[in-house]
Amino acid sequence: MEISQDTLAEIARIVGPEGIVSDEDSDAYLTDERGLFHGNAGLITLPDSAEQVSRIVSLCNRARIGIVPQGGNTGYCGGATPDQTGSELLINLSRMDKIVEIDLAGMTITVEAGTVLRDIQVAAAEHNVLFPLSMGSESSCQIGGCLSTNAGGLAVLRYGTARDLMLGLEAVLPDGQVWSDLSTVRKDNTGYDLKQLFVGSEGTLGIITAAVLRLFPMPRTMQTALFAVPDLAAACGLLQLARGIAGDSISAFEYLSATSLRLVNEHGLSGGSGVGDQVLLELANDGEEANLQAAVEGIYERGLAAKYISDAVISTSEQQRSRLWRLREDIPEAERRAGGSIKHDISVPLKRMAAFATMGSMAVTKASANAKVSIFGHLGDGNLHYNVMAPTGTDFRQFRTDCEGEISTGVHNLAVALGGSFSAEHGVGQLKRGLLAEHKGELSLCLMRSLKSALDPAGIMNPGKVV
Amino acid sequence: MEISQDTLAEIARIVGPEGIVSDEDSDAYLTDERGLFHGNAGLITLPDSAEQVSRIVSLCNRARIGIVPQGGNTGYCGGATPDQTGSELLINLSRMDKIVEIDLAGMTITVEAGTVLRDIQVAAAEHNVLFPLSMGSESSCQIGGCLSTNAGGLAVLRYGTARDLMLGLEAVLPDGQVWSDLSTVRKDNTGYDLKQLFVGSEGTLGIITAAVLRLFPMPRTMQTALFAVPDLAAACGLLQLARGIAGDSISAFEYLSATSLRLVNEHGLSGGSGVGDQVLLELANDGEEANLQAAVEGIYERGLAAKYISDAVISTSEQQRSRLWRLREDIPEAERRAGGSIKHDISVPLKRMAAFATMGSMAVTKASANAKVSIFGHLGDGNLHYNVMAPTGTDFRQFRTDCEGEISTGVHNLAVALGGSFSAEHGVGQLKRGLLAEHKGELSLCLMRSLKSALDPAGIMNPGKVV
Repeated sequence: MEISQDTLAEIARIVGPEGIVSDEDSDAYLTDERGLFHGNAGLITLPDSAEQVSRIVSLCNRARIGIVPQGGNTGYCGGATPDQTGSELLINLSRMDKIVEIDLAGMTITVEAGTVLRDIQVAAAEHNVLFPLSMGSESSCQIGGCLSTNAGGLAVLRYGTARDLMLGLEAVLPDGQVWSDLSTVRKDNTGYDLKQLFVGSEGTLGIITAAVLRLFPMPRTMQTALFAVPDLAAACGLLQLARGIAGDSISAFEYLSATSLRLVNEHGLSGGSGVGDQVLLELANDGEEANLQAAVEGIYERGLAAKYISDAVISTSEQQRSRLWRLREDIPEAERRAGGSIKHDISVPLKRMAAFATMGSMAVTKASANAKVSIFGHLGDGNLHYNVMAPTGTDFRQFRTDCEGEISTGVHNLAVALGGSFSAEHGVGQLKRGLLAEHKGELSLCLMRSLKSALDPAGIMNPGKVV
Repeated sequence: MEISQDTLAEIARIVGPEGIVSDEDSDAYLTDERGLFHGNAGLITLPDSAEQVSRIVSLCNRARIGIVPQGGNTGYCGGATPDQTGSELLINLSRMDKIVEIDLAGMTITVEAGTVLRDIQVAAAEHNVLFPLSMGSESSCQIGGCLSTNAGGLAVLRYGTARDLMLGLEAVLPDGQVWSDLSTVRKDNTGYDLKQLFVGSEGTLGIITAAVLRLFPMPRTMQTALFAVPDLAAACGLLQLARGIAGDSISAFEYLSATSLRLVNEHGLSGGSGVGDQVLLELANDGEEANLQAAVEGIYERGLAAKYISDAVISTSEQQRSRLWRLREDIPEAERRAGGSIKHDISVPLKRMAAFATMGSMAVTKASANAKVSIFGHLGDGNLHYNVMAPTGTDFRQFRTDCEGEISTGVHNLAVALGGSFSAEHGVGQLKRGLLAEHKGELSLCLMRSLKSALDPAGIMNPGKVV
């Protein structure tokens, strides 16, 4: 059903001329980050307050118009892309980007949902405190999107996911009411913790409009090292060994497969460091520099002795540190330049990670003997990006058409069979709805549907996503 | 409605003779920890598996029998005490106390819900890892109760509440089905995070039967100090100062008011240490002993200079450390010996904590000029136990009858007005239902009721608690 002219006019009145995206600018809003989905929308609006969002949603609820909430539009699963019909309304939160308050006594920051993640990090750093959520898309993703997808990223090992970093929330409910619990206290056990509902539900239960987030003391010292490891099993062994030495000073433990690093080299990124599988380790705490240095050296020496490590670069300057991190950060771009990859975002219990890798490559090889597997990511969290690329010299699009079904089914089934997840941090959106239905079990699906119909009986919030 | 003889017989068949508590043993199950509530039950059962719980609940659902789940029965709000009618069934989880698995690679422990908290701590410590949840009742409280009340305690500042420590959950739903998500992975963004529903909902949405919990590296070094502070405002100043020096190595920051410590002295507990208001500070991390020593000394020196500190005891042995902690731990018992207290468990943003204390004592004094206020607790979390005791030489019961209404209303209104909570960590149970209705706002209550009727349409799960 198309949105009526009267309704469009009323929405336009609510948001004013600056709140409407013109047709020629619409493409960036209607195509997802990976270019997998392209939708249409009856209107793309940019409200500038929760009150405007509330009035729009209330109107849509009465008229039974589907709403797609959108933040920085950096998601990997099409969760913020409308369907093709043009009958949905897209609400982009970009203009709601105010940092409302920083409270250094309580170590909290209150922000509107459209605030870009990087801006929150910077605002915190200006006060010498840390907002630790960090990921590749941080210069454009918005905190509302981070929360509604329960985003993870590079610092989960030490600081948790977006959910763990949230103290308070404000959301517009599917009937247009503004539900607000922008509490800044760390402890509040008064009834059901309703804010948890909106985190990770990808805009299907309401639109997050503001949040209170936790801040942390800025770590005083840091050590970064790149360890060459024989394979993924050794990397897992190294993680346990490192925990025994550095405890919870480990702030990052990223795995970079030889294949991923070769891509980075081949595509002229990051300037050539790193041969073979590597682990990027970072330690951070509030003690003396010398301590962490001793810890990183201890990990190196005992890692060598245990044959978990064959070589190492221990960073001695901030420059060198960023160079090591760039190796990790350039991998997705290198995959893109190499023609693209069939992406998976799996988690597996660490004790079964090596088995996953072995069995995973058997499944891939079966589908395509020469496909390349670029594995990298947050090994410390048991979460790897397991991306499969076309054999050298072949067309990726053809490869995807021929092999994606078999490969992805194999990889996902394997992760789930080993007690893991088919979507560790990227969520479900529209891309993984089928997987949710397949792997989640009828009882869980049934509970999710109950929640959905309890909160959004008309089904207007982000239709066709997640449930 | 009484439970029919047929139903009782069927339940008895399910759990067997060892699963039934006889009448002469029933008292411990029917009276709450604080002696505020005494209920009756048609039957007190001790199932020994999720399957038995499932069969009992399914039967009760068909017969519309109210169920009260119970763990260690150490709650402060009557959440595990049945009503007076004798028509409810009490399900105590004590016999489900198996530690199912410890996974040191994944740093997880899987336990049945009836496992006593202390047993989990010990099992972890035997493997040289830490399960950090810790509280006064840890020798008898059970993890299922900790999770269903989202318990806090002594290590929240560093490690979070029960919710933050949970990775996976199994629960019996109100219709008797066993919902299981005993996942051991740290990241799993596949649809609504259903396990969050059962944490903090105090058994009103289902019965938690097992959980997967996070383990942490055992801290290697520790420093404990008791600082004499002029007042609560100075203690808040000290917290910020300590954060600037020790960062997130601060693992505990407990406030002990002069009144609380005087009680401990007067009742022959803890052997006389501590005059005036005190802060118990603990630092813990993985660095060198010398570092933390330097940090604690730095806090002392700069605290003295800033007049936040007037005196200090820095512990130099494990013995001295436990002596300092005993001061803190003995306060509730000292209050009991002194005749009891009107208890409040408030949180307030730290920047308003001093104002809360000033205005709080005005409210108390207005109700009873000579009432004593014993304030202590987790200042680092913005959470204090604000307990009010009868004037010296007067009868507590009479005092409670005369003053509880006015005092508690004053204290709770104040905490909420300052942006805090009327129940930071103790939950709602039956004690604070009125407060929930008063302070939570109609929209939140309405959402909670929607969740309750979506999951428990017959209303059999812990009736009369929370919502």
